[in-house]
Amino acid sequence: MHNLERALVELPQDLVTRDQDILSSYLTDFRRQYTGRTPALLRPRNTTDVQTIVRVCAKHGVAIVPQGGNTSYCAAATPSVDGNELLVSLERMGRLRDLDPGNLSVTVDAGMILVDLQRAADEAGLLLPLALGSQQSCRIGGNLSTNAGGIDVLRYGMTRELVLGLEAVLPDGSLYSELAPLRKNNSGYDVKQLFIGAEGTLGIITGVSLKLMRKPHQLVTAFLAIRDIGSLASILSAAQIQTGEAITSFEYISRTSLNLLFNAKKNLRYPLQQESEHYVILEATTVSPVLNFEECMSALLGELYEAGLIVDATIAASQQQRAALWYLRENIPEAEVHHGGSIKHDIAIRTSRVSDFVESASRLVQDRWPGAILSVYGHVGDGNVHFNIVEPRGVDKADFRRRVEEDISPEIYRLVFEMGGTFSAEYGIGRVKLGLLLRYGAEGKLDVMRRIKSSIDPQGLFNPGKVIP
Amino acid sequence: MHNLERALVELPQDLVTRDQDILSSYLTDFRRQYTGRTPALLRPRNTTDVQTIVRVCAKHGVAIVPQGGNTSYCAAATPSVDGNELLVSLERMGRLRDLDPGNLSVTVDAGMILVDLQRAADEAGLLLPLALGSQQSCRIGGNLSTNAGGIDVLRYGMTRELVLGLEAVLPDGSLYSELAPLRKNNSGYDVKQLFIGAEGTLGIITGVSLKLMRKPHQLVTAFLAIRDIGSLASILSAAQIQTGEAITSFEYISRTSLNLLFNAKKNLRYPLQQESEHYVILEATTVSPVLNFEECMSALLGELYEAGLIVDATIAASQQQRAALWYLRENIPEAEVHHGGSIKHDIAIRTSRVSDFVESASRLVQDRWPGAILSVYGHVGDGNVHFNIVEPRGVDKADFRRRVEEDISPEIYRLVFEMGGTFSAEYGIGRVKLGLLLRYGAEGKLDVMRRIKSSIDPQGLFNPGKVIP
Repeated sequence: MHNLERALVELPQDLVTRDQDILSSYLTDFRRQYTGRTPALLRPRNTTDVQTIVRVCAKHGVAIVPQGGNTSYCAAATPSVDGNELLVSLERMGRLRDLDPGNLSVTVDAGMILVDLQRAADEAGLLLPLALGSQQSCRIGGNLSTNAGGIDVLRYGMTRELVLGLEAVLPDGSLYSELAPLRKNNSGYDVKQLFIGAEGTLGIITGVSLKLMRKPHQLVTAFLAIRDIGSLASILSAAQIQTGEAITSFEYISRTSLNLLFNAKKNLRYPLQQESEHYVILEATTVSPVLNFEECMSALLGELYEAGLIVDATIAASQQQRAALWYLRENIPEAEVHHGGSIKHDIAIRTSRVSDFVESASRLVQDRWPGAILSVYGHVGDGNVHFNIVEPRGVDKADFRRRVEEDISPEIYRLVFEMGGTFSAEYGIGRVKLGLLLRYGAEGKLDVMRRIKSSIDPQGLFNPGKVIP
Repeated sequence: MHNLERALVELPQDLVTRDQDILSSYLTDFRRQYTGRTPALLRPRNTTDVQTIVRVCAKHGVAIVPQGGNTSYCAAATPSVDGNELLVSLERMGRLRDLDPGNLSVTVDAGMILVDLQRAADEAGLLLPLALGSQQSCRIGGNLSTNAGGIDVLRYGMTRELVLGLEAVLPDGSLYSELAPLRKNNSGYDVKQLFIGAEGTLGIITGVSLKLMRKPHQLVTAFLAIRDIGSLASILSAAQIQTGEAITSFEYISRTSLNLLFNAKKNLRYPLQQESEHYVILEATTVSPVLNFEECMSALLGELYEAGLIVDATIAASQQQRAALWYLRENIPEAEVHHGGSIKHDIAIRTSRVSDFVESASRLVQDRWPGAILSVYGHVGDGNVHFNIVEPRGVDKADFRRRVEEDISPEIYRLVFEMGGTFSAEYGIGRVKLGLLLRYGAEGKLDVMRRIKSSIDPQGLFNPGKVIP
């Protein structure tokens, strides 16, 4: 009998699903570029179940692919086509373990869906400051495993900075558990950091303690048509100073990205009088009921007009208007898909070099492919630019992908590298960016990663073929 | 010839100091509890020198103790008494490598003294939000190695949260260098996290990139006499809401701690009319010139009086008054020394349990030693309490230490553990807290720490006997 079959027989059968009809929905990645195979899906109900599964697999040398909501942009949760890996879904583990309003913290099972966690915080009068496009289906363990970003990073940091405690099952089935929701804890190496952003290659995160925030009492959302992309840094700086660093989001949208959206959704209303090549959506929040926030924002817009940094602007006057403005940012990825899809470059550079990068990278693309459709947008307050090349209509899909991937993407990544940036700001590595990590990973980094991997997972059983080239 | 001598002969002689008169000042820890020995001090001028030193030592199997400003509270930078370890001081490595105001970042050699780094930021019109009692002598590499805390953690986080990039020499002499000052970077495991808080046991930090902040435009400092310790959480919450989460420091001072200070410094003026058993020093800052911050603070104090949470309060009206208020907090450790010294417990618990802990721990001590002098103060906004037992006058020093360490400290740490707290909030482990880590370390943590240590430092040459029991 094959090792894999031996392990499956030994496992508690109520955790095992072999029905390939059920399985199939777990086997294709979020962006539909990879489909894997597996003889069985395992669905633990609690941490002890995870330990049981991992121990049996370790004993028989069987590899495991952990999966949360299966929303990785880098196919980090998709098994290989060999069918030699078992899939472990955390979807049954969605329990709220503890919520302490006085400590501004929450502890949950890693399989909790992000919106459920947001709702639990909301019901306690608090805020979980992590919001993502995939929040209806992604799970918090996956958010930690990819160190998810999102639109609130400018104010609250990446997912890593929200984590107070963590519980994980190691590749030998042993448990690491340090869930105490403490603000300060220098009791030895900060082991939990290892599992954050490791995409399931070092352990299966089973529990997590997170910071919560007080709910904002005031919220102001503005949409700006800006003079040129070079003013981004000055606008952000002025906004931070006027509001007392209360900016939660500062998102750039290029005219091309906006046009794609208006083409895809015919009934959309353009919110301004004037047009521009560059737009910013900016949001500020405060818990204070006394600080005069409306006044701050009016003063800010006045200052920006006067300095010639913006050509037009609007402030949302209602929740509906706010939603309409955010719609313009949040639906760009879908508009790209509607147009035929895009090849994405999720890069980050110093915030002081964002406009230089966008200008140089755009020239580089136009030189190689005059008329290419460049959808550029992103969290520029963090230096994170989504620099996407959209598939033109009427070209051969495969030919487009090949041309961009062979001739253009490598040049974009080379430029990012030369400008001291990174080829993966928030998407991670998964199986998609292994080559880029080999080429552009920081000096000595891969060596340390390999040492850690082999010390924690000497058999190489956790999510093989991901993150570590 | 002894291995150690072989290594010393092979090293560039201009890096080696054997003069024991010079050496002696490096061999006793900050709190004067340990004195070690070494045949030589090595003083590299740059990262290449550090690599040279480490390679030669690795070749001959010679152990190394890295040292920054030698200000560890846990004797983490003091060599053993065996004299088998070479001391590597980073004191010659104080170069500013890069300061990018547009990116709010700075990159420096790890040997830069903290005040020099604060000054460099200040001269660029920016703020490095890390302030410590030892800032005149501690060095930034040491601050990273211990993940230093301080009085601004509430607003800006521990040192870890300020780190954008890091460069370190590994125990085999190879270099890990990921200094790019990026806000977002998910390009593989976040390797730099490993070295932060590792107290020199995994690598010698040689360079660091840090976040800078905009300088505050307004700053308000208040000193409050509070009704009872149970009101701490309500007061902090009210202050955060009124100021829009602009509180940078929220420090608790017990009356006993204040009395020690007034006994030590006879000319000090008490800043309030009313007295209390419990005090808070609170500071709020904002970069905004328009938000009416004075008004916020007055409204806050009015609210706190009305709710009966405070009995008296004062707001500093000048820089001198501010300094006088901070003097009351910053000189408590010195006042403890003046009284005869203290045995410190640097613990942290959930912020929601701070007052419960202080009350239970105080009872516990009074039961075992009626009349014991308890100096309690700390960064309670982060749940970090310095719970110190001060040496009474007229007792035998050795007897006092023995009695507290054998009969009382273990009970305090047991209480902290039972309440879900930590035995080391910001001081680290060094050689002082190895036993506590063995006893109270999180489940499975020590196992992971040992695996990491042996994968990065298989010969065990970096800072042996520290952090890893």
